[in-house]
Order: sequence, then C-alpha cells, then structure tokens
Amino acid sequence: MRIAILAHEKFPHRAKTALGVLRYTDDEVVAVLDRDNPGRRVAEFVPDVQDAPIVESMADLVGRDRDGDGDVDALLIGISPIGGAFDESWRADVRTALEAGCDVISGLHYFLGEDEEFAALAADHGCEIRDVREPPEGLSVSRGVADEVSAEVVLTVGTDCSVGKLTTTMELARAAREAGHDAAVIPTGQTGIMIEGWGTPVDRVVSDFAAGAVEEMILETGEDHDYLFVEGQGSIVHPAYSGVTAGILHGSMPDRLVLCHAAGTEVIHGYESFALPPIEEYVERYESFAAPVRETEVVAGALNTADLESEADARTALDEFATAIDGPATDVVRFGADEVLDAVI
Amino acid sequence: MRIAILAHEKFPHRAKTALGVLRYTDDEVVAVLDRDNPGRRVAEFVPDVQDAPIVESMADLVGRDRDGDGDVDALLIGISPIGGAFDESWRADVRTALEAGCDVISGLHYFLGEDEEFAALAADHGCEIRDVREPPEGLSVSRGVADEVSAEVVLTVGTDCSVGKLTTTMELARAAREAGHDAAVIPTGQTGIMIEGWGTPVDRVVSDFAAGAVEEMILETGEDHDYLFVEGQGSIVHPAYSGVTAGILHGSMPDRLVLCHAAGTEVIHGYESFALPPIEEYVERYESFAAPVRETEVVAGALNTADLESEADARTALDEFATAIDGPATDVVRFGADEVLDAVI
Repeated sequence: MRIAILAHEKFPHRAKTALGVLRYTDDEVVAVLDRDNPGRRVAEFVPDVQDAPIVESMADLVGRDRDGDGDVDALLIGISPIGGAFDESWRADVRTALEAGCDVISGLHYFLGEDEEFAALAADHGCEIRDVREPPEGLSVSRGVADEVSAEVVLTVGTDCSVGKLTTTMELARAAREAGHDAAVIPTGQTGIMIEGWGTPVDRVVSDFAAGAVEEMILETGEDHDYLFVEGQGSIVHPAYSGVTAGILHGSMPDRLVLCHAAGTEVIHGYESFALPPIEEYVERYESFAAPVRETEVVAGALNTADLESEADARTALDEFATAIDGPATDVVRFGADEVLDAVI
Repeated sequence: MRIAILAHEKFPHRAKTALGVLRYTDDEVVAVLDRDNPGRRVAEFVPDVQDAPIVESMADLVGRDRDGDGDVDALLIGISPIGGAFDESWRADVRTALEAGCDVISGLHYFLGEDEEFAALAADHGCEIRDVREPPEGLSVSRGVADEVSAEVVLTVGTDCSVGKLTTTMELARAAREAGHDAAVIPTGQTGIMIEGWGTPVDRVVSDFAAGAVEEMILETGEDHDYLFVEGQGSIVHPAYSGVTAGILHGSMPDRLVLCHAAGTEVIHGYESFALPPIEEYVERYESFAAPVRETEVVAGALNTADLESEADARTALDEFATAIDGPATDVVRFGADEVLDAVI
C-alpha cells in the first residue's frame, strides 16, 4: 500500500504517530504532509526512518496520476492533539483524499467516519474511513487471568506520555525475533494498531473494560508465541491518563517491565505544573502498584536520547538512567535493543 | 415518584444499587422484586432503610390499579452482575413494566434503550428508558485543575468494590449538612446517579476521559458549595477496576481521603485468588499514588460492620481498623458519621 501521512506543523517531534509509522510500517510512504516544510524531505529531520518527500497538501499528491494506477492508496492522520480532536485546518486534505478515492486512516478520538461530509464523500467515491481508535464490540471486564498464558509478558511503562514506549516495544520485539525467539507485539494505541494491523485502543475503551481489553489480547495470542511485548500507555503519575496506565498494568499481569523515559524531561508534557518524580521512584511505583495483582519487576530501561546531540552526552545520560533504575538501559534507536535484551527475555 | 426495584435472587446483600436507593432515595419504593422472597418485607432483612413489600414479579404490581392513578411510575434495576450484563430472566419484568406504561431506570452496561424489544415497547406505550450508565457527550481529558475550585474535595476510596464508598459518601455529606455546612455529592456510579438525579458514570466513560469526567463535575459545582463529597469507585488494587479508581483519584485532586472497608473481607470479591493487602498498606498506597498529582491524606476510615452481629464485635473491629489507618474510624450506618466528621471537614 502507498500511504501519505498528515503531520502539519508538528513534524517531526510532535508527530508521534507519523514517526512510528515511518519507522515501522511495511507500507510505502509516498509523502508526509507538513505545510511548514514543503519541498524538504523526511531524512533531513529524521535520518533513521523511511525517507519520503514533504509536501504542503494532499492536492500536491492527487490528480497527477498520469499512468492511472493511483498515486496514493491511503491518507493516514499522523498527529493527534491532546484530547484527540480533529483540527479543521486538515479538512481540505481529508476531503481531497476521499474525492480522489483514497482511504483515510485515523486514530483520533473524533471518528472521521461519523463526520457527515467525510462519510458522504467516502460513500460517493467508494473508499473507506478506518477509525482505528474505535474499539471492538463485546469487550468486558478483566478476569485477572492474563498470567495463565504460556508466553512471557513484557510491558513497557513510562515516566510520561511520548517517551518511547511504542518504539521500545517494537525494537524489543524485533531484537527478540532476531535472536531467534517467537515474539509478538500487543498494540494498545493508535500507532501500534496502524503498524501491526490489529489491536485494541485501550485509551478509547470503556474505562471499566480497559484491563479486560488488554487481557483479552493476551489470552488470544499468548499460546502462540514465546514472548508478548505489550505497548504501554501514559504514565502512572499522569494527571489525565493514569487510569489507562493502571488498567494496562493490572490487565496484562506482566512478568517483566521496561521503564521508558526521554532524557531531560522534567515535567509532564502538556501539564507543565506537574513535575516528574525522580526516576528512582518510578521503579518502586510501578512494581508496588502492580504487586497486589501481579509481582513484577522493572528489569531494564529505555532512554530516548534524541535531544542529546553528542553520543558522549547520550552515554552519560544512559549511565545515569541505568544507575537510577538499578538495571541495564539503552536507547533502543541510537544504540539498539540488544544491550538490554538479555535482561528482558 | 413511586418506584419498584428489581433485585431477584440477590436481595439484600448482593443488591448494592437496590440497597443504596432504598437507603437514600426521596422516592417512594412500592415494592422490591425478588423471586426468592415473595411475601416478605424489606424490613425483615434490612431494618434501617425504607421498608417495602417484596413481590415475585412486576405482574404482581400492575393491572391492579383500580383508582386509575397508576401504581408504579418506574421500574428500577437494582442489581448488576459483574460486567453489567442484562440477565434474560429479568426480561418479563421489564416487558410488563413497559407495557403498563412504567419508565425503566437501569445502570447496566447493557443499555436497555438499545434493546429492540424494549425500545419498541417504550415507544408504543409512551414511557421512557433511562440508562443512567450512558455517559454524556462532549467529555474530554482532564486538565489537572480540579484543585482550583474553592470547595474542599473529599474522596472515598476503598479496599475493594462494594465496601461502602457510596454509603460513606452519602452519610458524610448528610452529616456535614446537618452540621451547617453546604455539602454536595459528586456521583460517579449508577447508584449515586439514581439517587442524586445527576452525575457521570465514570466506569462507563472512555478510559482516556475518566479523570476528565470527574474533573468536569468538580469544576461545575465546586464554586457553589463548601464541600464536595466524591463517590469513589473500585479499588487501587483491583485486577479489573483499578484504572477507574486511578482516574477518579487523580482527576478529583482531593484534599482528603476516607478509606472504606468491609470488616472481615480478605480477598477481592469475585476475584478470590487475589488477597487484599494489609489495611495499613492501603493508606500508603492511596496517598503515594495521588502524590505526584495532588498531595492528600487518608484522614479517616469507614468500616462496614454489617456482618458482625454484636455491637461489641463491631466496636472491636472498628478499633482495629482505626489503629491500622492511624486515624478515626466509624461505621457510618451503625454508629453515624459524626464521629469522623471533624477529621473529614
């Protein structure tokens, strides 16, 4: 499939979904839409993901299909404001995509398929709107039995949102597979679902069913693999999202935890009046919170050092982080996941 | 309003909603439906709530209206299985109610208004189905600002589900009002909403919005009262519901906590392989979990001693509980809330 990724004004650092898809998708990314940087390329900003041209709008991509085979199969919404609302400045791009017969894939809380104009356009032009954050029917409460599967369950947990839980999950699963293990990812959020092509958006599930939604995914896959790498969400100290984090932590009943952090982060993103507790505390917080349901341990750390230019600085930050969590740590993108894999599996 | 309460096979001890409504509603309860105990009365089982006859089915209540003023205005579903499903053995009662023009009030996760047969009957007979667990439109994520209201916020938290958080909330608010304070209840679950006539069912909200739903209720009412008593849900150690608990704890940013427990409970109800941690630990768990968002303190305890027949045993259990939480404690039903009110307000 050939996809375009919408990431206006947020690419690359505030375009978490766009980056995740660029890094891990098997699809071909034909362009990134960013009206702030038309004419440039992804590789100028992020060297280690799939490269693509940056264009101003969807209109730059459609209507030029001289060979008639379609230039773009789908437009993927690659950014998400806090709250998951739809930004009306994106409407023209979505409209243009649908009018050209492109599918639209979105992980927003605002379901594009329920937008009257978009629904009508999709029907008229025979294309599909896929709201991946729409949870499946038939979810229910957790039964507290996720630990009964034969797979070892590894959950990524974070000091905040957007600190690298998805990336760490993907890299650890990949490293485990490369080491000869049968490892699968349990996607719990929009980006993971877009990459893996399945999963349940736990943050969009009825809150009573959050733990149950994770449990169900683990029960469905846990006999087919040696390791399940569960994509964590939010943070146990987050003013808005701690409930989602708690549901995933208890629902997944993990054997091991990997603590993710972005170097230099000191306050909750978007909630700057809330300071992050010291890293040391997080280990105790996650283990202690999990314990009444499942005894588990933070066995390794993943530090996002993208903001540190020099490798020496990154290594220093990693050392400090490893000391704070009293375990091995790596930047899974910069230095690879192998350094912590032994601790994790 | 004259209401009938359905509580088949669960009355009284597994009929939490029925009991809460019998204890606190301003409406007249004309009967409780319990096919296990027809011919008996509520007062034989529970002495300190509104009394009413127990009947076998809705058919015993309708069709006898000789004076033509209607015998029952509404049927209220007073029990809820784990998961909030609809028990098909109740269908005849709901059908009979709707055919007789009674409204039906339900807090189940299964929305009766979306049941084809019930929806058609309600339309045919001009009556209303009120699914109180259906959350309002327009909810969003918490902004982390509930502490900005002028009211003092008191949240009930629990060692498990069904240990008395609603009862404690209602009794504390009542005691505060009797002591001359302007106190309001923030209802977060089906029973509280049925009693108070407003509120948001936080366990039914999109999990990303759980904290935000509580915050919104506090912001809406927090300037109009001196005290807000927030109905807590679940427990921080619950395998299925901890996410809801976490969302309410962080979203409400409470000034004070009241820990609720049922004497003698040693395992999570319905999840008997999970032991409750020692009471002492809960104080630390709740305070520590809240701290990164809001420093708060467990200032008092509420112990449900209904299972202890002798008052001496109840007093002993209370003393032990007070020692464990290192604060004042009472059974709000048996001994009144006044004993802890000073610590709470």
